[in-house]
Amino acid sequence: MDDTWPHLGLRSLEGIAETRLPRGTFDYIAGGGWDEVSVDANAAAFRSRRLLPSVLVDVTGVRTDTTILGSSIAAPVGFAPTAMHGLVDPDGEVASVRAMAAVGLPLVLSTLSTCSLESVAEAAPEAVRWFQLYVNRDRGVARSHVERAAAAGYRAIVVTVDVPGDGYRPRDLRNRFEANGQFGNFEGGVDYAKPLGELLAGLIDGALTWADIDEIRSWSSLPVVIKGILTPADALRAVEHGAAGVWVSNHGGRQLDRAIASLDALGPVVDAVAGRAEIYLDSGVRDGVDVIAALATGARAVFLGRPFLYALAVGGEAGLEAAAAGLAVEVSKAMALLGAPSVADIGRDRLAG
Amino acid sequence: MDDTWPHLGLRSLEGIAETRLPRGTFDYIAGGGWDEVSVDANAAAFRSRRLLPSVLVDVTGVRTDTTILGSSIAAPVGFAPTAMHGLVDPDGEVASVRAMAAVGLPLVLSTLSTCSLESVAEAAPEAVRWFQLYVNRDRGVARSHVERAAAAGYRAIVVTVDVPGDGYRPRDLRNRFEANGQFGNFEGGVDYAKPLGELLAGLIDGALTWADIDEIRSWSSLPVVIKGILTPADALRAVEHGAAGVWVSNHGGRQLDRAIASLDALGPVVDAVAGRAEIYLDSGVRDGVDVIAALATGARAVFLGRPFLYALAVGGEAGLEAAAAGLAVEVSKAMALLGAPSVADIGRDRLAG
Amino acid sequence: MDDTWPHLGLRSLEGIAETRLPRGTFDYIAGGGWDEVSVDANAAAFRSRRLLPSVLVDVTGVRTDTTILGSSIAAPVGFAPTAMHGLVDPDGEVASVRAMAAVGLPLVLSTLSTCSLESVAEAAPEAVRWFQLYVNRDRGVARSHVERAAAAGYRAIVVTVDVPGDGYRPRDLRNRFEANGQFGNFEGGVDYAKPLGELLAGLIDGALTWADIDEIRSWSSLPVVIKGILTPADALRAVEHGAAGVWVSNHGGRQLDRAIASLDALGPVVDAVAGRAEIYLDSGVRDGVDVIAALATGARAVFLGRPFLYALAVGGEAGLEAAAAGLAVEVSKAMALLGAPSVADIGRDRLAG
Amino acid sequence: MDDTWPHLGLRSLEGIAETRLPRGTFDYIAGGGWDEVSVDANAAAFRSRRLLPSVLVDVTGVRTDTTILGSSIAAPVGFAPTAMHGLVDPDGEVASVRAMAAVGLPLVLSTLSTCSLESVAEAAPEAVRWFQLYVNRDRGVARSHVERAAAAGYRAIVVTVDVPGDGYRPRDLRNRFEANGQFGNFEGGVDYAKPLGELLAGLIDGALTWADIDEIRSWSSLPVVIKGILTPADALRAVEHGAAGVWVSNHGGRQLDRAIASLDALGPVVDAVAGRAEIYLDSGVRDGVDVIAALATGARAVFLGRPFLYALAVGGEAGLEAAAAGLAVEVSKAMALLGAPSVADIGRDRLAG
Repeated sequence: MDDTWPHLGLRSLEGIAETRLPRGTFDYIAGGGWDEVSVDANAAAFRSRRLLPSVLVDVTGVRTDTTILGSSIAAPVGFAPTAMHGLVDPDGEVASVRAMAAVGLPLVLSTLSTCSLESVAEAAPEAVRWFQLYVNRDRGVARSHVERAAAAGYRAIVVTVDVPGDGYRPRDLRNRFEANGQFGNFEGGVDYAKPLGELLAGLIDGALTWADIDEIRSWSSLPVVIKGILTPADALRAVEHGAAGVWVSNHGGRQLDRAIASLDALGPVVDAVAGRAEIYLDSGVRDGVDVIAALATGARAVFLGRPFLYALAVGGEAGLEAAAAGLAVEVSKAMALLGAPSVADIGRDRLAG
Repeated sequence: MDDTWPHLGLRSLEGIAETRLPRGTFDYIAGGGWDEVSVDANAAAFRSRRLLPSVLVDVTGVRTDTTILGSSIAAPVGFAPTAMHGLVDPDGEVASVRAMAAVGLPLVLSTLSTCSLESVAEAAPEAVRWFQLYVNRDRGVARSHVERAAAAGYRAIVVTVDVPGDGYRPRDLRNRFEANGQFGNFEGGVDYAKPLGELLAGLIDGALTWADIDEIRSWSSLPVVIKGILTPADALRAVEHGAAGVWVSNHGGRQLDRAIASLDALGPVVDAVAGRAEIYLDSGVRDGVDVIAALATGARAVFLGRPFLYALAVGGEAGLEAAAAGLAVEVSKAMALLGAPSVADIGRDRLAG
Repeated sequence: MDDTWPHLGLRSLEGIAETRLPRGTFDYIAGGGWDEVSVDANAAAFRSRRLLPSVLVDVTGVRTDTTILGSSIAAPVGFAPTAMHGLVDPDGEVASVRAMAAVGLPLVLSTLSTCSLESVAEAAPEAVRWFQLYVNRDRGVARSHVERAAAAGYRAIVVTVDVPGDGYRPRDLRNRFEANGQFGNFEGGVDYAKPLGELLAGLIDGALTWADIDEIRSWSSLPVVIKGILTPADALRAVEHGAAGVWVSNHGGRQLDRAIASLDALGPVVDAVAGRAEIYLDSGVRDGVDVIAALATGARAVFLGRPFLYALAVGGEAGLEAAAAGLAVEVSKAMALLGAPSVADIGRDRLAG
Repeated sequence: MDDTWPHLGLRSLEGIAETRLPRGTFDYIAGGGWDEVSVDANAAAFRSRRLLPSVLVDVTGVRTDTTILGSSIAAPVGFAPTAMHGLVDPDGEVASVRAMAAVGLPLVLSTLSTCSLESVAEAAPEAVRWFQLYVNRDRGVARSHVERAAAAGYRAIVVTVDVPGDGYRPRDLRNRFEANGQFGNFEGGVDYAKPLGELLAGLIDGALTWADIDEIRSWSSLPVVIKGILTPADALRAVEHGAAGVWVSNHGGRQLDRAIASLDALGPVVDAVAGRAEIYLDSGVRDGVDVIAALATGARAVFLGRPFLYALAVGGEAGLEAAAAGLAVEVSKAMALLGAPSVADIGRDRLAG
């Protein structure tokens, strides 16, 4: 990291990270399902949106802070759950949570984190931390994950529902990519010799249905967020099954290729949910204007995966902190230029067409 | 063939095949009519579709099997009729049918196959084989083809109707491409010294009309499929003339350039036919997600030509088997990610927009 | 010319011609107004159209012949009026008319032809020849042009109305392109020392109005075609002023940049005219499928400029004859594949969407 | 400057200027906000418009002259306010105003001009000059700017309202670009050691609201134009607050990225204002056809920034004069080809679609 790179914006980090990471690791992060059409579609969706600024609004006191499920955060952005931060930084998620906490932003810890959920909690006890759950085929393991997360001060359980089986990621197959890093939240039961896709398919329960959501909710008092929803129908079912949050995502284009772009799926979900749950989004957010576009469409907050991993890869904890802080500044600047002094002012009337 | 290439997906095979085949042969396979706009349009149509996955559906028992005209096949994909497999593999269609049969998938043998229809039948007696008919100017020859196909256990006659005259394929003209390979289903009457376009125009009856379909049906008890339909009006006429199947195709963009993309033509045809015949599609299918998109639009099964020829060129019978098996796996994975445990679950509601 | 180039299609001729012509000449032919957006738009309009073939139509007797203003032509294509063929071939329009006549196709001779209109008539007395009129500021000269054309057996007067002043063609300005070739239809009054744009602006009357059309009609008994119309309103006025033909054209993108593509303007003009005049089109036609698309939209015939000039530049009279004959063959093949045995069968129902 | 470059058109100047200016200066001029999507969108909007020429209109007497707020100008184009012309020419805005005056076109002087507003007035007393106001945090300074402008014969105050805070311009950050040139209209109070963005944010009042417009109007008898409006709602408020002109602009894509293209915003603003104020536009105008497109949409005049700065950089005062004169000629030619003898004839019916 030199001190100019944050000026380049998050998009520039991918190229820098590519030069520093092993090919297999970089491809694992950057790649997507099949022909990566949905990866491109996520970016294109953000690029296609047009904003309508209002002028002569006093924006000297722009405030980017908001809340997610009642927790205050400095800006409506967070670190999306992503596996094995240890692949890009020796301190893994401990570095990640410290960086995010330093700028008042949330982190969603992956079930497949390199660091144990307890060590991440210990590294940043006051941080807004959520725990992402891949529901284990062994329900005892899954329940244990939830109970440990609750005990360690995680404030919500984010159940990922768009990985019912391993996807088809040509880059990983070509690179014969394996999860060399240990999964920090497991006590045995993980066969690292398998290709990553098979390994995950072996861990994650493909038989999961809506009824299981009710059971998962019963394992703790934490609110449950359903992550990986792309249709109004599923969003409504999430609400019916008590979800406090609906997380719109096509998994960064990493699961079903040609799945609708997250941003394109967002509006109909927002309309269907009609305020009965908070709505989040990931996939394709790369700058402060993207954040504004998602909020204008109805998201309460957005989460980033790849860009923050690249920041961690390029600059470690300090790099991630600079990247996250830089993004928050971009959000603030974009709000001022939009004529929106608070996040509540970013309504759908700010979108053209 | 090395053991990693299936990981690259069917699209990657074109480039590999290009390095291994004579220019004229490769161009004959890859090329299209005129400026090849329809070739590109077929791919673009698939690329443009967006899918809507449903989550929290139990997909542990995903089944890709289906039936076509009552025959069970392992997945809704088959080898489209393509001429002269001997151009890319010394064993020709005998290799092709063995490879497809090994994975439980159908092959439609071309009238212009290198191997005789009887030798192909003998190579894989139990395979689901259909016979594609170019109706000869000499109706006796045409009738003989149908009768031989029926005798040899082919289960349907696929009458190609979009080659009323030779097309205009600049690549073949530039390369002065000729059918050096013998046509295995003819006993004389073929003047190989002619350019391929002229040769075919001399064999195929350009005066064919709907009344002839009734006659062709009378030549055997086999069901008849009409291949090369792009409009609802023609699809309805096919049904009226007793077609058991309507095969939507712009011939891979090889006939009339600027003909509507097969996938774009599919929906209106499905609506018009309204279940009175099975609907198939070819042209542009390159991966498992494409298969899903076609089925969601209403196709019962899809057929691939070029990609399977490239697989045969690159890896012979084993290569084709790996390619076909790989595609079936992709279909299975895509169905799981779509939340569709069986092909019957892949409805039009899975398409966005 | 070697005997393979016709196989490449008309589009390929541009690149060959570019290597053989002086830069200034090539740019004069290839270039357009301003940023050449309309040049590209003409091509894009044709590329975007999708056709709907009908199958099982007897096309063994496809006939491409038609009539324009009562004259029989072998196919619905002709050589558009273009200035100074002497720039690309020493025999100029004499070569052009012979080539077109050899294949039964019409030529529209430009007022600015290198060869005199009489010499062109003499070279091909039986050819279908029309005379294009740039109305001279000196009405006596204009009237003389019309009278001479009538006397020399030209069958129609095509009044170009989209050059009320010189355009803005950066390539010509950059190249300081001048009309070194003599204008064969003028007896003095031409100052070749001027830049071409100024020279033309000096010759052509920018004050021309609809009333002048009536006067021009009175100069001979020939039917009058108005060339350069892009709106239904102007097409109707042409009909009101006795035009026998309405020629839809944005002048190949050479006049007002961003003018609507000729093909996009065609449909509304056809609807407005409603059969009261014949409709022609130029701009962007490059192959037989383009011809079909224009006819399906309602044109009676189409005319080509640049591609035929390139053919003349590359192969002289024989080259142009081969190119024109090749295009007619393409039209025939496209009609067969479309399922249209005669030009009357190419209706708007053949266009998708 | 050599005497051929005006032939290349304004678009070509960017490349030439890039070779002659320091990287930081060029990037400051050429760059935009964030990922520069709106910069591209401005150009794409103009490129996408299609025009409908009318033929057989007498255009021998085409007149491009018009008025803006009662001042006669030779053509509906002017120099948009842009900071620090001294960056590209040692004579700065003195050269600019002389060049524009020489061809009868207006200049809007920036608050951040290198030359003092008085020196610019003295250089071209008769020129149509407007003064652009960045409202200083110190209202005394702002009022002084307005009073000085009124005293120096500026004919309108253009209040820029889309810079409530500094934007986010990665190029400037990367280049650590600083305003080395002095701001000619300030007497102290400017800390040039700051990065440009911060410097401007320190000068410009981000608390400005509509009420302040009323106050600014009271500082002089000059008409007030509000610059930076993109929505009908804000345009109406401008009218309600007594604006004589509404200037539609996304600041050349330099402020909020993804802001709607100026040309796309224009039509709805024109409809809302309904003649109660004059409407101007900047952002993306690069040639005479662009001017026509903007006028057809409803703008009374358009203003150019970057292209005129490049002209000044490449050719100094003479270069700018040639560029401005060339653009006026282009407008004249485009009007003739459109069949519009006066600017009043350029109505919305000239736009296709």
